[in-house]
Amino acid sequence: MPEIRHALTIKREDDFANWYQAVIAEAGLAEESGVRGCMVIKPWGYGIWERIQRLLDDRIKATGHENVYFPLFIPLSNFEREAEHVEGFAKEMAVVTHHRLIGDGEGGLIPDPQAKLEEPLVVRPTSETIFGDAMARWIQSWRDLPLKLNQWANVVRWEMRTRMFLRTSEFLWQEGHTAHATAEEAKDHTLTMLEVYRAHAENDLALPVIAGEKPENERFPGAVETWSIEAMMQDGKALQAGTSHYLGTNFSQASGIKYQAREGGEQFCHTTSWGVSTRMIGGVIMTHGDDDGLRVPPRIAPQQVIILPMLRDKPEDDALIAYCEELRASLAAQSALDEPVRVLLDTKPGKAAAKRWDWVRKGAPVIVEVGGRDMENGVVSMLRRDNLWNAETGKPAFETPSREALAESISDLLTGIQTALFEEARERRDAQIVEEVSSFDDVRAYYSKGRKFPGWVKVAWSKPTGATLDKVVEQLKDLKLTIRNVPMDTFAPDGPCIFTGETAKEWIYVAKAY
Amino acid sequence: MPEIRHALTIKREDDFANWYQAVIAEAGLAEESGVRGCMVIKPWGYGIWERIQRLLDDRIKATGHENVYFPLFIPLSNFEREAEHVEGFAKEMAVVTHHRLIGDGEGGLIPDPQAKLEEPLVVRPTSETIFGDAMARWIQSWRDLPLKLNQWANVVRWEMRTRMFLRTSEFLWQEGHTAHATAEEAKDHTLTMLEVYRAHAENDLALPVIAGEKPENERFPGAVETWSIEAMMQDGKALQAGTSHYLGTNFSQASGIKYQAREGGEQFCHTTSWGVSTRMIGGVIMTHGDDDGLRVPPRIAPQQVIILPMLRDKPEDDALIAYCEELRASLAAQSALDEPVRVLLDTKPGKAAAKRWDWVRKGAPVIVEVGGRDMENGVVSMLRRDNLWNAETGKPAFETPSREALAESISDLLTGIQTALFEEARERRDAQIVEEVSSFDDVRAYYSKGRKFPGWVKVAWSKPTGATLDKVVEQLKDLKLTIRNVPMDTFAPDGPCIFTGETAKEWIYVAKAY
Repeated sequence: MPEIRHALTIKREDDFANWYQAVIAEAGLAEESGVRGCMVIKPWGYGIWERIQRLLDDRIKATGHENVYFPLFIPLSNFEREAEHVEGFAKEMAVVTHHRLIGDGEGGLIPDPQAKLEEPLVVRPTSETIFGDAMARWIQSWRDLPLKLNQWANVVRWEMRTRMFLRTSEFLWQEGHTAHATAEEAKDHTLTMLEVYRAHAENDLALPVIAGEKPENERFPGAVETWSIEAMMQDGKALQAGTSHYLGTNFSQASGIKYQAREGGEQFCHTTSWGVSTRMIGGVIMTHGDDDGLRVPPRIAPQQVIILPMLRDKPEDDALIAYCEELRASLAAQSALDEPVRVLLDTKPGKAAAKRWDWVRKGAPVIVEVGGRDMENGVVSMLRRDNLWNAETGKPAFETPSREALAESISDLLTGIQTALFEEARERRDAQIVEEVSSFDDVRAYYSKGRKFPGWVKVAWSKPTGATLDKVVEQLKDLKLTIRNVPMDTFAPDGPCIFTGETAKEWIYVAKAY
Repeated sequence: MPEIRHALTIKREDDFANWYQAVIAEAGLAEESGVRGCMVIKPWGYGIWERIQRLLDDRIKATGHENVYFPLFIPLSNFEREAEHVEGFAKEMAVVTHHRLIGDGEGGLIPDPQAKLEEPLVVRPTSETIFGDAMARWIQSWRDLPLKLNQWANVVRWEMRTRMFLRTSEFLWQEGHTAHATAEEAKDHTLTMLEVYRAHAENDLALPVIAGEKPENERFPGAVETWSIEAMMQDGKALQAGTSHYLGTNFSQASGIKYQAREGGEQFCHTTSWGVSTRMIGGVIMTHGDDDGLRVPPRIAPQQVIILPMLRDKPEDDALIAYCEELRASLAAQSALDEPVRVLLDTKPGKAAAKRWDWVRKGAPVIVEVGGRDMENGVVSMLRRDNLWNAETGKPAFETPSREALAESISDLLTGIQTALFEEARERRDAQIVEEVSSFDDVRAYYSKGRKFPGWVKVAWSKPTGATLDKVVEQLKDLKLTIRNVPMDTFAPDGPCIFTGETAKEWIYVAKAY
């Protein structure tokens, strides 16, 4: 087989971490801003986020939530209320202490000592406590329940080691906050939103995920139950791609969220919270990216079809552009994956080949080139980004449908790419999950075999708590492993816990993780 | 005429400021958060903002911009670069000085003295300087121009006196930032975006506005030209509802935004910036609100039609809900104002009359009540929010079209309400603009006549600058007046400036303002 000359200089298998950074740079997704730990999300990256927002927002609204907006700043004292929450969050946060700058007398600026805040304000790392304040005001009786709110916002957690999209000091997310009359209803809702996330990840982002409960040690600070969706990256590591928390009455008691019950008497509400963030984009990159850059699943691609006329700066260009514009209009008139097809006719200055490779690196699902000869023959030269190379020739696998045939088949084509990306990721993940593990030694052996990209192991455990759990966590930590979650809907294990030797209660996934 | 019992207890003419707060509270738009100067935007208020975002975002994209996201935090030193910008903004800003909290040993939390930032970070009041940094990296040659970016974001300006939507410490907005090769192109673009704002305000929000240039003293810090759209509130005051700035090469020089010209040689880019914010919602309230609450123009109404079944907690309710659900589906299948009709079937617990008045106060454009008798007769009881009362009876002006007739006419009905709200506001504004003013004494007389809600005066002036302008500004300030803008596309005045007595160069609007 001829060697393929890929569009990136770094290959996944040679250096996954640098490959990841290269995709982000070469696909124009984001870059370092110069502000510590904060990135600039560039048009193509932000376009993907806008698509994620639109699709997830529809799902959140379809489950009866309304969007709201709460303040960026949270008074310090809010964090002093819920003990576990303080413990978990009162560490690395951005603190506003002054509200004015003045000249330092030497042409520079300093915070004005006269403008020191009486109570410092924390830039929200998450908003349970401030939503709690409002819920306490808004909820009087059972008639006000359930209260189902969501907000799209930026949050800040001062991270020491940052990585674009995966862990940045500022990130974008949605955070849902709901209040319910009973524990049962709130727990049900926690799982409803977990299912929303699963469906969104799998159907919209083509990310196969395992939905399940996090172990006690991985719970959100203040939560009674924390559930997650976990995706496997191409290097075998796990990425927690979304979490849904049942908070019991912990935050209700801290904020005074009470209601008059139907049958009389005052009760604390049971609350939930759940969020997904721009981290999802990191998951898309590490799941669908290849040695030519990113491959964006059609549902979240800002543009699904790119039309590149082979312009020559000559009078014939006008006819070619007109031909391409007709193609653009006929494609945009089609629907695919329940929405009008998104098509871009790219007439920016630049060489056609250079522009093609730009779009390959960005991962536009379908790239269509049209030259003078194509126009004469009534055809186009088309590349599917998910199937870029002709393995026999080592060249790009161009197809040349007629212009009409392309318009007629575009819906199937985009649907096919969406499905193919999901199936490819699911097969790879399933092949990298090891289930034949009957002892901790097996786990150690699996991760010690010098495997480049070891996957996950699925093991039976007795669901230890407290000090016993701490010991398990430490044992895993030595191998740089963590417990990911307890998958839903599986049979209970038949045999002993690989950690404690006691009767196993459930399965858990163990993996290296981002 | 019988007296009408309005839905609010405070009337506009009695106390406009408190009426404004009452509408915000009673329509469930927003409330004080408890965090100084920051509000909570509630579902109905945020729903209006989402509609504004969607419609304006489409217009911004249609003019060739791409959305991006830049950091919330801006290093202090960025503000030291552009002298005028510092002067204008380096005052009331939120300053982050620490990145960690620790326990104070008494159960409380304090900023960790060990975690003081070397360089304080400012929470963005606007993002010219940080976009400038990126533009300097991204632009090399004329081929990279124009660069047209936009972001939707929260910004913070520490305001001493705040009023919900109009002036809050944190607010939501979009800020566009563009770079161009020439002054002419950048100036053209400044006006293109001004026109986008005018069209958005008038067509989407039904806010009649005057588009024009701000006088020198009202320019954005660092701008060469500042243009605005100005709307008149029902109390006659002006509200600056959007601004578009031509920044010359001021920010390019400060940030080093240069390009290689086509003809060779390095040039500074000419940049623009422009923004509208949640302030717009304040404008909608003060333009379209009445003594019964808000009236939301259909294009920006989160729900355009509310269906209220008169439920009685009896078995017959099921048939009524089914009848209403059919109506909902038939309305939702219609299009109005270029989009599918947004209909809500409200089956929440509560008395039908109480719910009707809730929706009246919220300002849903069309409210449809359906009782058992309506169902039997195949009709509905409909209220148009823009024409709520029957003046003869002093009762709500219900109409009773058949269910089918309502579905057939809904498009015309919503279009009619959108137009009627705009026309009503335009007529009121035009009637409150005084043009027969030939001296400053006339201005003084107009504003001293004990008029409750004086409007604007349009006067001829000589466009003074420097100290002469300062004097004019002082003169107006004594009457609590400001210069709003110089309207576009009007004939030059024929006569002397009312301030300086010199030959007048242009018309300006003078008004009290928010």
